[in-house]
Amino acid sequence: MKLTLEDMTDLARGSAFLGTGGGGDPYAGRLFAENMIRLHGAPELVHPRDIPDDANVFIFGMIGAPTVLIEKLMNGAECDLAIDTMEKMTGRKADYIISAEIGGLNSVIPVAMAARRGLPVVDADGMGRAFPEIQMTTFNVYGVPISPIVIVNDHLESVVINANNAKSGEGFARAVAIQMGLAAMLSAYPMTGKQVKETAVHGTLGLACGIGKAIVRGRHEGDPVDALLAYLRTTDYYNKCAVLFDGKVVDLLRETTGGFSVGRCLFEALDGSGRRMEVKFQNEHLIARDENGVKTIVPDLICMVDRETAEPITTEALKYGQRLKVIGVSAAPAMRTPEALACFGPHAFGLSEPFQPIEELMSL
Amino acid sequence: MKLTLEDMTDLARGSAFLGTGGGGDPYAGRLFAENMIRLHGAPELVHPRDIPDDANVFIFGMIGAPTVLIEKLMNGAECDLAIDTMEKMTGRKADYIISAEIGGLNSVIPVAMAARRGLPVVDADGMGRAFPEIQMTTFNVYGVPISPIVIVNDHLESVVINANNAKSGEGFARAVAIQMGLAAMLSAYPMTGKQVKETAVHGTLGLACGIGKAIVRGRHEGDPVDALLAYLRTTDYYNKCAVLFDGKVVDLLRETTGGFSVGRCLFEALDGSGRRMEVKFQNEHLIARDENGVKTIVPDLICMVDRETAEPITTEALKYGQRLKVIGVSAAPAMRTPEALACFGPHAFGLSEPFQPIEELMSL
Repeated sequence: MKLTLEDMTDLARGSAFLGTGGGGDPYAGRLFAENMIRLHGAPELVHPRDIPDDANVFIFGMIGAPTVLIEKLMNGAECDLAIDTMEKMTGRKADYIISAEIGGLNSVIPVAMAARRGLPVVDADGMGRAFPEIQMTTFNVYGVPISPIVIVNDHLESVVINANNAKSGEGFARAVAIQMGLAAMLSAYPMTGKQVKETAVHGTLGLACGIGKAIVRGRHEGDPVDALLAYLRTTDYYNKCAVLFDGKVVDLLRETTGGFSVGRCLFEALDGSGRRMEVKFQNEHLIARDENGVKTIVPDLICMVDRETAEPITTEALKYGQRLKVIGVSAAPAMRTPEALACFGPHAFGLSEPFQPIEELMSL
Repeated sequence: MKLTLEDMTDLARGSAFLGTGGGGDPYAGRLFAENMIRLHGAPELVHPRDIPDDANVFIFGMIGAPTVLIEKLMNGAECDLAIDTMEKMTGRKADYIISAEIGGLNSVIPVAMAARRGLPVVDADGMGRAFPEIQMTTFNVYGVPISPIVIVNDHLESVVINANNAKSGEGFARAVAIQMGLAAMLSAYPMTGKQVKETAVHGTLGLACGIGKAIVRGRHEGDPVDALLAYLRTTDYYNKCAVLFDGKVVDLLRETTGGFSVGRCLFEALDGSGRRMEVKFQNEHLIARDENGVKTIVPDLICMVDRETAEPITTEALKYGQRLKVIGVSAAPAMRTPEALACFGPHAFGLSEPFQPIEELMSL
């Protein structure tokens, strides 16, 4: 199956939803991917099961702060330099491109790179959503070394990091990304087809496209939020889901600090009941809570959409008075194991609350 | 000529003087160099004129804050990794080791590495003193590219930077060094014998040894500060020199910030005249000023020594009540050209005063 020009709108919209507020608005990345497809043709989308075990699979994406990434466009040269450098450092040629995270900008950027280099793109990623730090991947949790990490800026400067573990690699990568103005190209976790099969969250590019299509279909049929939830319930991973809150933004704290967009957003119900919900975020939404307690918590997904159009809203686009629906969604099973929770569960973000699946918190 | 075990004390003391307060106390580095000479034998000291034009000359040193470097010892493995990585990145084997700066710790560290790998060490450096930033070298001023820059920590993690210019390289290297706790091994400016001849400050390891010997001789003969000045007057570069002030420390501001030790030190004369001198520093002393104006300014050297023993005092060892002599010394001619001053003259440190040679300021 080819990922066509027409798929890019659906993929971008679906991955903006799976970005859970972060990952960077895919808009600029979508334009870049569409341009690459126009110039070089549509890349093949290949499921992990169809990849040879010994294939070389390289990540391509961006690292930085969403607030910067939405204002910074990419040319092609720094993208090529990232993959060229990874090929040089590993002594292996890229056979496939894979996304580190399906949420946000990093869903469409790998498609652009795959088109540009005439390579297939893998229908999988390392998060099944978006996360703020690069050690927070199933690749890391299930044993793929993060190094070498290649980071490149638009001045064609490159930095290659060989770290002892993924957390240390994140520390170096973040320091370099800050030095690069919080918008840089990244490749890391060079892996084989076998490693992709064993560690990635499978099928997520296709799922993101499906989410995008469901929203558009819902707009024609009546209620796009209903259509979105109906589609999610048919999927393998995202099938436990619920509208957590229907309200407007009454308070918003958002800072770019330490290389991240961090803050919290307070909602008040539209029904005059005075009910409130608070959502905290570090690039991505981490915890949604109302008067009765936690409703959804990381790594389960907390997504915000426009209450009329179901258009996904990223944290950097949040505004006072905005009317939104907050939706909670189950993460893939590979994201909820004890090893996975140790890497990107609530404690990894400094939250004291333990992880509880949305289906228990919301009695789904 | 070999650099022997016995030379290490003189080299360390002389380079502590040429460190102009910074460069890190060579004490720990001297112990390491002595140990390497004991284990592997004394390395040959070779003047640049005796190096083949096509020889591969690699810098080896440390990057960080002096306040950290004096508390952090090195093992051998991270040192080897720095040179191994530089050899891998350039595809060339090191023929000679050279010092980036003769001032402080980075004078003895290259000797340790040369002994360890059985290589000769070049009698030259890129500063003729110490400076806080790695673009501040004659290598950079006279056209040797800074990249690749290799930085390694004691966990054997490595970072390789390919920057477009030396200033940008310093930005990345500093961010990485901060991430490594402000004590890391560095190689950069890989160069040929021809480039060493054309760009280095020649003969400075021998000069540092001579300074160390003169101080010790002076202690036996009567006044070590007099003996030190008498020796400096016989050298090619450091021959304009004077005691700028004889006093005690009455105020001291010193912070480790942005990866540097920055601050100022205020002296009061011991003769009861109430005369004062202020010295500002960023790792190294930058400007010495009294009631009548500037007495010495960067890149000329401002050095502090114990007023009785002429033992050089680094900024991190400065204490309230300490009795010191402040000595001004001329920099090498290659350090005073317009191109050189643009790179490491007063304006490069945010000072508004223009450079004036010590011989004019002090009417020598």
